Amino acid sequence: MPDTPQTPLLDQVHIPADLKRFSDAQLHQIADELRAETVSAVSVTGGHLGAGLGVVELTVALHAVFDTPRDKLIWDVGHQCYPHKILTGRRERIRTLRTKGGLSGFTKRSESPYDPFGAAHSSTSISAALGFAVARDLGGNIESGLGDAIAVIGDGSMSAGMAFEAMNNAGHLKKRLFVILNDNEMSIAPPVGALSSYLSRLYAEEPFQDLKAAAKGAVSLLPGPFREGAKRAKDMLKGMAVGGTLFEELGFSYIGPIDGHDLNQLLPVLRTVKARATGPILIHVITKKGKGYAPAEQARDRGHATAKFDVVTGKQKKTPSNAPSYTRVFADALLDQAARDDKIVAVTAAMPDGTGLNLFAERYPSRCFDVGIAEQHGVTFSAALAAGGMKPFCAIYSTFLQRGYDQVVHDVAIQRLPVRFAIDRAGLVGADGATHAGAFDVAFMANLPGMVVMAAADEAELVHMVATAAAHDDGPIAFRFPRGEGAGVTMPERGEPLEIGKGRMIQQGKRVAILSFGTRLSEVIKAAEALSARGITPTVADARFAKPLDRDLILGLAADHEALITIEEGAIGGFGSHVAQLLAEEGVFDTGLKYRSMVLPDTFIDQASPEDMYTTAGMNAADIETKVLDVLNIAHIGEKRA
Amino acid sequence: MPDTPQTPLLDQVHIPADLKRFSDAQLHQIADELRAETVSAVSVTGGHLGAGLGVVELTVALHAVFDTPRDKLIWDVGHQCYPHKILTGRRERIRTLRTKGGLSGFTKRSESPYDPFGAAHSSTSISAALGFAVARDLGGNIESGLGDAIAVIGDGSMSAGMAFEAMNNAGHLKKRLFVILNDNEMSIAPPVGALSSYLSRLYAEEPFQDLKAAAKGAVSLLPGPFREGAKRAKDMLKGMAVGGTLFEELGFSYIGPIDGHDLNQLLPVLRTVKARATGPILIHVITKKGKGYAPAEQARDRGHATAKFDVVTGKQKKTPSNAPSYTRVFADALLDQAARDDKIVAVTAAMPDGTGLNLFAERYPSRCFDVGIAEQHGVTFSAALAAGGMKPFCAIYSTFLQRGYDQVVHDVAIQRLPVRFAIDRAGLVGADGATHAGAFDVAFMANLPGMVVMAAADEAELVHMVATAAAHDDGPIAFRFPRGEGAGVTMPERGEPLEIGKGRMIQQGKRVAILSFGTRLSEVIKAAEALSARGITPTVADARFAKPLDRDLILGLAADHEALITIEEGAIGGFGSHVAQLLAEEGVFDTGLKYRSMVLPDTFIDQASPEDMYTTAGMNAADIETKVLDVLNIAHIGEKRA
Repeated sequence: MPDTPQTPLLDQVHIPADLKRFSDAQLHQIADELRAETVSAVSVTGGHLGAGLGVVELTVALHAVFDTPRDKLIWDVGHQCYPHKILTGRRERIRTLRTKGGLSGFTKRSESPYDPFGAAHSSTSISAALGFAVARDLGGNIESGLGDAIAVIGDGSMSAGMAFEAMNNAGHLKKRLFVILNDNEMSIAPPVGALSSYLSRLYAEEPFQDLKAAAKGAVSLLPGPFREGAKRAKDMLKGMAVGGTLFEELGFSYIGPIDGHDLNQLLPVLRTVKARATGPILIHVITKKGKGYAPAEQARDRGHATAKFDVVTGKQKKTPSNAPSYTRVFADALLDQAARDDKIVAVTAAMPDGTGLNLFAERYPSRCFDVGIAEQHGVTFSAALAAGGMKPFCAIYSTFLQRGYDQVVHDVAIQRLPVRFAIDRAGLVGADGATHAGAFDVAFMANLPGMVVMAAADEAELVHMVATAAAHDDGPIAFRFPRGEGAGVTMPERGEPLEIGKGRMIQQGKRVAILSFGTRLSEVIKAAEALSARGITPTVADARFAKPLDRDLILGLAADHEALITIEEGAIGGFGSHVAQLLAEEGVFDTGLKYRSMVLPDTFIDQASPEDMYTTAGMNAADIETKVLDVLNIAHIGEKRA
Repeated sequence: MPDTPQTPLLDQVHIPADLKRFSDAQLHQIADELRAETVSAVSVTGGHLGAGLGVVELTVALHAVFDTPRDKLIWDVGHQCYPHKILTGRRERIRTLRTKGGLSGFTKRSESPYDPFGAAHSSTSISAALGFAVARDLGGNIESGLGDAIAVIGDGSMSAGMAFEAMNNAGHLKKRLFVILNDNEMSIAPPVGALSSYLSRLYAEEPFQDLKAAAKGAVSLLPGPFREGAKRAKDMLKGMAVGGTLFEELGFSYIGPIDGHDLNQLLPVLRTVKARATGPILIHVITKKGKGYAPAEQARDRGHATAKFDVVTGKQKKTPSNAPSYTRVFADALLDQAARDDKIVAVTAAMPDGTGLNLFAERYPSRCFDVGIAEQHGVTFSAALAAGGMKPFCAIYSTFLQRGYDQVVHDVAIQRLPVRFAIDRAGLVGADGATHAGAFDVAFMANLPGMVVMAAADEAELVHMVATAAAHDDGPIAFRFPRGEGAGVTMPERGEPLEIGKGRMIQQGKRVAILSFGTRLSEVIKAAEALSARGITPTVADARFAKPLDRDLILGLAADHEALITIEEGAIGGFGSHVAQLLAEEGVFDTGLKYRSMVLPDTFIDQASPEDMYTTAGMNAADIETKVLDVLNIAHIGEKRA
């Protein structure tokens, strides 16, 4: 496969409507070209590869049969949308994927009318499709028009409660609606849960061979139950069939499973359901993640997410790293604690690799629980493990913990159960962009009574915080840490529990104190060095805890300095707000304190390199330095920024 | 049924173990006595009646068969737990239900070892039971011991995604676990969704008559599939059956449906599964909400929640109200907007009555959507309705909106879709206690970029805010309002859209400005009157918006006063934190401002009357007055509080 593939037919496709000019045989070729172009593009940009390769034929078939953008095609999660983007007028920009100013790695409303509902978190597509279907029937009026609504959702995403809620509602409302279950037997990790076993049984019962033979007639071209005859097929399409499959029991007609890489099955099935469906219908499509590109097919994660790579060899071009990732440090520290305490258990919501718990699962398979894409359940399950005398570490990314917020409040915090929340990907995350930013966790965790909230300033601190969490048995505790590599600091032999609610002094200075919460500390230190060179040596402290606050430290800093600046990689309402509340209640503002709180700006920041994002957010050393000079009223305009 | 019923057998039951001394026939009588005692108690206290009456026999049977508290019996939601409380050592206090210092209206860990996992929000019980089952198998060690885990969950609660997530995980883990599906065909409102239809079909297929006849043999005493013979029964109990029912497809053995009011069915079934189950098993029990008390059985809501009442007539003793409830005002205002704009639609998550949308559903049935207990889906469904050109009002209580938080962030805010969030029950809620407090919404909504956040100061303001939300088409908007009656203010003829981000001056005073966000304004005004009588006339303003802030108003108040006090009925991180951030960034604190932010205290406040709760929270006029005197350094100790 050459680096810039020959794509004579694909070159003629500028918008999806162009596909309708081609014969089915030509669509096969277009799919092949689209696959090659996808591999080529991702080799340059890095990103999600396997998922897109798995839906190349499905993408072609859906756009060839339906009338987008009038018909609303909604890709669940959206990381499989690169082929879709190539077909929908974004081919010229496809090699800007996931870069600043480039195409998003997910679907995005602001990017194209062919992305009617953006995504990035899983399991939203059926709710979205149902909303469009209802809006259509109520006379909703939008520029692109409102036709059919089609959700494409993976088997992993289907296991989330939200998808079940949407199915339950859709089966009740009985609107014409298409759900394509893209069953690749993989989410990011192999799927878990009973639903997955169920789907495997369906798969086992319906070999593809039969389907291929069947895919020639008129009604009998339809697979599965449809082959029982026209009467049965008609009943099915009317949603009248009772019993048989889980989906039918939820009010959907079920068709499948069919081979998602065979356009000879996909095209006639989609054409038939488009012509005849009257209610909600689920089409079960079997695909292979990474399909058609050997290095992806053979990878353990099926090429889920990749760095830039060489197309011929599949070898990824990763920059060698100097320090271990925070994720790895967390995982190792937890293993160390678990070796000494058999009550420690770990819970992940379908992210064993991303959270580092794959290592825990290998070492302690009976003590590690991948609950599936099920943050709500995962949090409450952790709460009950704690109530049952275990010490659960519930490892969920900041952005996904939003999915389990009520459970954090209701099942953990109110009951004061000692669940340990390991909040990875806290702060800005780079190429995944705004949808994955961990911006809100400090605010939404620290205002819960009884919750202890820590942020690690570096990877050594993280080790101590894991130890602190393991030792803390008097209520819930959370610690956050960012994506990416550590600072390369000297690592402690083992983690030692920190005193709850006590920060640490980094350097003693004058006039201004900078109180950092989390990994921005390294930038604070850089800023402090630059300021020292100008004759202003700031005091620097690491708060460690947003809750409980280190009152003595904070009030001391306020008393001893003209100015106090807090910094955190989080939105307003978190650490800085707690500090401000303390200062206000203690009357510190009454007589004047130059107080500033540096938080993430009040915008969703699009994908870019982490460095670019920090610049946008105003969270770099230069920004901190400027803040100090500003607050001390020292002229600097043009000096630092010129 | 007398007011203090005769309960000779029940009087001998002090703890559940006492039940084991009685014959099955005597258990029948105990159930009857328990029902009478429950009715009698609730007639005195008010509270949830129908749900408890529906599980009287089930409560007796579970406690007679299982060994609580070693076996963990987990009541989903927990509002059906009054009979359980009577049997578990809390009978003496049962007439203190839902009062300050009394028993909680829900299960609560701190109240009894027989409440192993508290509840109040729905659909957590299976996750909790699974956690206990896993902890047991891993050697979890707690005082009461760890035996079986039994979740009792209603059909409404079962429709929430969280329950599905837990079933999916439990079916995968294959631990011995009991889920009792308490199918009363009612949640608070009649249930909706495809699951409900499915359950009805199961019910229709298995008439009770057959079951009663079957309930005499040994293995064949088991209903449903069990009657096919011992071999089949054995397979079922091993969880080996494939296909047949939705629950079996999720890895559960299924038994049922059985008559939940017939101890002759309940006792043998529970004894058999206790003796023989090896994996997860679902027992489908049909009950009748309000069973055995005619006024409840005949009520539209089956006596779901009631005021104190007369036992003989069932007539409720409600205090007549002087002002309409905020809920009713919202509902009427929305109807008024909807009459003039056919794009307005309404979404509720199983709370049509509680949110007032029952009125909307009556008037505009095709434009009102009860999505079931499915806040996650409800929020994203609303987002897509907005994307489809509709104007959705998504009406969810503050505490339940926590369930849809990620969807608010990911699907609504990031996409800037104009969903209108009507946040009822914002602030303290009285008898429902800490689990239902709407404490966190201002913080978790106002830190989302592009979100407009309003709070109504009174019911007239609420009418204007509904109009403001209807008119606001440039991104999402939220307005919050409390439980209970309005202030009795003059109502406007119709709602008029407010200018976004503009507050209003209430009275001009001197020295101190009080800036209120929400309904505490009436207490602020009372405090201002009291202060005026002492010669201190505060300036009073209503912020209306937590986001965007009225910068001119706030900076003006700060400039013109010695002190500025904000007040809101919400936890830290919300309105006051946004004001503090503005003041800090503008350098207002640099030269001194007596700034205070009155927020809910950092505790979960147990149930009490609203007045008591406000006293606990320090949110009454007297507290505001004290705050002003404190901040102005005016002696008052002993004067006001003596």
